This record gives sequence, structure tokens and C-alpha cells, in this order.
Amino acid sequence: MTARTATAWSDSAAAATQGAGKPLTIVQKYGGTSVGSVERIQAVARRAVATHAEGHRVVVVVSAMAGETNRLLALAKQLTEEPHHREIDVIAASGEQVSIGLVALAICELGTTGRSFLGHQVRIVTDEAHGMARIQSIDAEPVTAALDRREIVVVAGFQGIDKQGAITTLGRGGSDLSAVAMAAAVQADICEIYTDVDGIYTTDPNICGRARKIERITFEEMLELASLGAKVLQTRSVEFAMKYRVRIHVRTSFSDAPGSWVVPEEELGMEGAVVTGVAYDRNTAKLTVQAVPDRPGTVAALLRPLGAHGINVDVIIQNASVDGHTDVTFTVPRNEVGRAQRFAAEAAAAIGAGKVSSDASVSKVSVVGAGMRSEAGVAVRMFDALGRAGVNIQLISTSEIKISCVVDERFTELAVRELHTAFGLDAPTE
Amino acid sequence: MTARTATAWSDSAAAATQGAGKPLTIVQKYGGTSVGSVERIQAVARRAVATHAEGHRVVVVVSAMAGETNRLLALAKQLTEEPHHREIDVIAASGEQVSIGLVALAICELGTTGRSFLGHQVRIVTDEAHGMARIQSIDAEPVTAALDRREIVVVAGFQGIDKQGAITTLGRGGSDLSAVAMAAAVQADICEIYTDVDGIYTTDPNICGRARKIERITFEEMLELASLGAKVLQTRSVEFAMKYRVRIHVRTSFSDAPGSWVVPEEELGMEGAVVTGVAYDRNTAKLTVQAVPDRPGTVAALLRPLGAHGINVDVIIQNASVDGHTDVTFTVPRNEVGRAQRFAAEAAAAIGAGKVSSDASVSKVSVVGAGMRSEAGVAVRMFDALGRAGVNIQLISTSEIKISCVVDERFTELAVRELHTAFGLDAPTE
Repeated sequence: MTARTATAWSDSAAAATQGAGKPLTIVQKYGGTSVGSVERIQAVARRAVATHAEGHRVVVVVSAMAGETNRLLALAKQLTEEPHHREIDVIAASGEQVSIGLVALAICELGTTGRSFLGHQVRIVTDEAHGMARIQSIDAEPVTAALDRREIVVVAGFQGIDKQGAITTLGRGGSDLSAVAMAAAVQADICEIYTDVDGIYTTDPNICGRARKIERITFEEMLELASLGAKVLQTRSVEFAMKYRVRIHVRTSFSDAPGSWVVPEEELGMEGAVVTGVAYDRNTAKLTVQAVPDRPGTVAALLRPLGAHGINVDVIIQNASVDGHTDVTFTVPRNEVGRAQRFAAEAAAAIGAGKVSSDASVSKVSVVGAGMRSEAGVAVRMFDALGRAGVNIQLISTSEIKISCVVDERFTELAVRELHTAFGLDAPTE
Repeated sequence: MTARTATAWSDSAAAATQGAGKPLTIVQKYGGTSVGSVERIQAVARRAVATHAEGHRVVVVVSAMAGETNRLLALAKQLTEEPHHREIDVIAASGEQVSIGLVALAICELGTTGRSFLGHQVRIVTDEAHGMARIQSIDAEPVTAALDRREIVVVAGFQGIDKQGAITTLGRGGSDLSAVAMAAAVQADICEIYTDVDGIYTTDPNICGRARKIERITFEEMLELASLGAKVLQTRSVEFAMKYRVRIHVRTSFSDAPGSWVVPEEELGMEGAVVTGVAYDRNTAKLTVQAVPDRPGTVAALLRPLGAHGINVDVIIQNASVDGHTDVTFTVPRNEVGRAQRFAAEAAAAIGAGKVSSDASVSKVSVVGAGMRSEAGVAVRMFDALGRAGVNIQLISTSEIKISCVVDERFTELAVRELHTAFGLDAPTE
């Protein structure tokens, strides 16, 4: 898995966009909706064959047909409560097996050889974490050999094998990761992610009518926009793409319209806006621990049990110390608030802190943009915009390319729309 | 795969029947109905765990859940007409993958380790005939290693891999063959075939109310009774069992009642009846070629095109020659009669024979019994019985342990019942 230079890719991307020029290696990933019926599968085959007919080398990665994975997991759930059992992966992986067979068949029917590959046939080797395995290596040789024979390769997403040869699965949305990993392994020029939306938007179009499709976005921005992007792109696949510099093109399988490109930052050049998108996350709850003794190690002692129980602590704020005590506030996923409060209260008692209160009616609103690195005053513009709209800011957290504010949940949509306008993201009105 | 001596097995079988004594290696095969729902799967798990708890080594072989294979093949059929496509096997094999995962899960929930194995994980290597592959070898090592760890092994029926690692399937009823082959590979003492009927009957109980369950039957008889046995046991699995001397116990998964044993002939000892069963086959049509020149090679020339097109010619009768010409009559499967007549007519023209007529309203009735070898006069008893019932015999064919008569289809049930009574097979009336 080697990276290509930005220049080489830019040429390729241009060629790809124009549908002409030198042959590329293209990975096309189709989600469950895109292979949800025999007709849709035939459409996938037509697109793959058309791309192949232009001279490109084509690897298709597919998910299970829409609804299949849920159906299979529901069967398993009737037998066991354990979510990460070895045998559940055996069951779940069968959904993608059906899809690759059907897609390969449909390709063959169009007169081109389509050849399916299961996880073990490409040797997508993962660790042994069933249900959420991480890819460790891919043996690209069988795939490149098939590409050299001018076959269209159809790879099962979502699945791999561990070193003992047991089937593993990569977790929800894992087919995106399979596609990016295959793209890295075969040194693809483009990894196309076909989905039922036509790209990545500046914010959620459901709450902001003037959301625009983003033409290009950096890997880092995409990661920060996870709460938007999760709907179209699995977070771990973006991390993987960033690491191996795999250019992603998120687009719809229902038309030929270009979608959104996710690319290395240097390829964005001058076009980068200060703020690329506005994200929000309602799955947020706030906990406050009062009167925490202000000495080294107490905050760590407070939060350690949460981490140990798999609860992800996000924004953490510590007030200035008064009389050797301070208040500590942090956010957790809302569905974890009960457990989080219990663990925090135990830890608070152990270190001699005060009571723990929680508020589950908050949300987190964020602006994201690689341009922030070189542009001062973004935070102030954000706070001004929220203030003008009468939205009180409860907590603030910043990273290099993101500023997040925790606000009263009722103001979520208002805050998103105000920020979208304030940072010039609104689509022009007709 | 080595054979065991009859003596050694007789001891084992006795022990197994009594549910006591030395530990055995037992393969249990469950068909689609037996794993047709979560509740049925739990019942399969309970039976496997109970057998295991008696100290036996247990290998479970399962089919796809009832209806799944048909559902998957119907999906594939919407995409291609070709029945034996590489990719159809990829699709079809997923049904068993779901079953083994569910059965292994259910076993684990009972506190015993169940471990699933796919065709490629046991290395069930077959030829490359997709949709009807033949098993060439099995690597029993992973299975025996798991058995040595006191795990219950759950193997996917119906599937294998070819030498290139592509998934293959063994054809309809192929899970029986998988079970017998696994039994041979692990040198099992018994191969139990669990099904929705409680054993093998002397004839079809649907047309003969006094049919009896057969306690023991030889491999050879079972093969001849294929038209009865096909409902409970795939023919190729019986051939395989005969070759590797795998004792089969056909029984129901709905109770603990013993079923029917299929065993080597020498184990039947004195108990063998002259006639073990009466079979019939309605899928029969009769073709007659008139005025075939009576010289060497003409019958071969007549039938060769049928064989070349995969049409199975069964009974063949040639009349005495008159004026250097003879009539040749043969039977073929009824659904092939149109093609058979066309090929035969072409061949008849080529060798200067006369016209070809066909009659699709015939059926074949047979009596089968290993005892025939040492008992004279069975044919006469058969013809007498049919004659007394007023059934005219159109064609006769005999083998070492079978006599078949082709009769007018309307007399099928009558002929079966008369022969069943004539050979003393009727169950005693209450």
C-alpha cells in the first residue's frame, strides 16, 4: 500500500472526471440500497461494465442487500445476547456473499467476466475482534491477477478473516472500510462510494434548506464532520483513507452526477473555505461533578472508570479553582448518561468530590474547516453569530480545525442555520 | 478414509442403540426442515449437546434453513438462465453458512463449545463442476483437532471448494453426501441422517397403507430403492457410504425413536428378507424404434446421441430379429421424452431404421431385495402377482437384486400394493 503523489492523482482525477485519457484503477463501493433489488444489481453491473469498457480496471465492493444484515442479526439475537460472538460473524458475513454472487452474475450476463471474492479469498486479514475487527493486511495478488486478465473483480465488503481463518466482520458501515482498504491495496486512483445521497453537504439539508453539496473536502474535515458524514461515510474508512491517501468520491448510484471528493489537504489548494461545514450532535448529555479537590490526578480518577467501561467522554471543562476545589463538566453520548453518572458518582465519592448532576437536553454544534488554521477570529465569529440569535453557550471546545459549542438542545436547528449563514455556506437563492 | 470391520461396528452400534458403553464418533446431519426455525435449531442443539454429554464425539452437518436455497436460487435465476454458473454456487452456499452459525450459537448457549466450519475451512475439496461437484478429498485435521478439544463441530453441508479455492456445491440433497463424506473422513461409527420422516419404508406409505418401516437395509438395496429413498437419502450419498462402509441411521429429528439403518450386506445376517421393498417410478416414458437393421453397432448408434445429451436411458429391450430387422424399445425420464424422440429419430434415419413412437403413460414398478441372489423364482412370483391383478407387463428388466416391470401408468398403485402383499411386506393389521 503506497501513496501516490498529488500531482499524479490530479491528472488522473481530471481524466476520470472527463471520462477520457489514461486507464485508471477504480474501486466502486455500492451500499445496501444500491444492491437492494435485482434491478438495482443490474444497474450496478451496467455502471461497472461501462467504466470497464472505457479501459479502466474496476474493483466493485458491495454490502449486503438492504435489510439483510439486520434480518440475519435478528436471527442470531434470538439465540444469544452476546453481540460479538465468533458465530455471529459467520452468519452476518453471508449477506455480502449473496450480493457479490449476484453482482458478478449480472456482470457476466452483460458479456464481461465478473469474478467474486470473499474475504478469505482476498485474504483480508483482520484482528480477532469479532463484530468490529480491524484490517491488518490484504493480499492484493488474486485481485490484481484478475484485473490483469481484464476481469471485473467483485469483493465482499464488511468481512475478513483472522489469522486462524475464522470469519470476522468490520462493524456497521464496514463495507466503506473494505472499499478504501481494497483501494489502498491495489493502489487505486479513485475509490468511489456509491450511496443513496448525492454527496456530502455543508450541513444536514433536513434542518437547513440552504445546505449545499460540498465539491471537495479534506480527510481531516471529513473526520470532524463525522456526525454529518456518518450518514454517507464510515469514520474509520476516512481515517484509513487519510493514512493511505486514498481519494474518495462520494456519489449517488441513481445518476451520473458528480458527488463530493474527499482528498488530501494539499490538493484543495486555494479553494478551501474557512469553514467547510456545520455539524451537530444531539446524542449528547452533560455531567457536572461539583467540588472536585483541585490536586493532580483527580480529573483522571474521575473519568478513568468511564473510559474503562467504554463510555466516550467528549468535551471536558474545568472551572477555575476556588478554595482548592473546582467543578468539572463533561459530555458523554446521551444513551450512556445513566451508566456514566453511576461511574462518575462512585469515582467522585472515592476522591472526596461533591455530587454529580446530569443534563440530557443539550446538543453540540460545531463548525469545521481546514482554513481555520490560517484564519484568526473564527471562534469570535461563531460566538457572535450564536449570541445575536440568542443562543446561550454552555461549553466550548476547540481543535485545530473545529470549534464546538454545547447548547440547549432546543436551539440546535436555529444554531446550525445561523452558523451556516454566518460563514457564507448558504446556497444562493433562486 | 478407512473402513472399519463389521464386528467392530456391530459392537458400536449396539452400544449406540443402548445409549451406553464406549464413546463413539457420531455424525448428525440435519436437513432444512430440522433447522427451519430458531426453535428447531435449538432442538438440534439440545440433541447434539445431549449426545456429546454421553461422552461421544459429535459432528453436526446442516443444510440451509427450509426454503432458503430456493429463495437464493430464485434470485440468481432472475439474473441468468445458466444453472451451473460459478457465482450461483457462491450465492447458494450462503444458506448453509447461516445455518452453521445459528446451530453453533445455539450449542454455545447451552454451555458447550460449538464451532462452525465452512467448506473451505474443512477443505472439502471437489472437482470444478459447479452445482453438481463431486467430493475429492476432505482434510479432517481441523475437525478432529476440535473434537479432541471436546468441541461440537458444526459443518456446512452442500458446499466445498475446488482446487482454485472457488466455492462449489454438491447438487440437490448434497448435505447428505457432505455428512457421509465427513463420517468417512473422521472414521465415524455412525452417520445419523435426521429428517422429517421416521425412516425408510417398504414402499410409499401414500399409496400403500400397509407399508412398514424397514429396520435394516443394505447399501445395494437402498440404491435400487432410490425412487423411495430419494425422499430421505440422496443417491450419491448412499454410493459414497457403500464405498467407505459408513453406516447410516435415517431417523426423525422430532423424536428419539430409532429409524432405519443402512448397512453393509454382511451385517444383515440371517434377517434379510427375499424382497425388502417395492419401488415405483412414474417419471418414465417408453420409446420404440421400428425396423432397426440387425447388425452390430446399430443400437449403440441409436442411443449414443441421447447419452451425449445427458438423457438417461433405463430399460432397453430388443426383440428377436425378423428379416434382418428388429424393434428396439427403451425408457427415458418422462420430462426428456420430447428431446429423446428427436435425437432417436435423427439417429434412426441415419442408420436406416423405421419410425420412432413414444408412450409417456407408463410407469416402472420394481421389487428389490438382496435375498434374491440366493432365492430362485422371485421373478415368477412377481409376474404371477401382477397377472392375478390383471396388470399387463410391457417391458421387463432385471438386475442381481431387482426386478423391474414397465406397466400402464394407471396400474401403478395397484401393482405396488399387490407386490407388497405378495412378498409378505404388509404390516400386520391391528
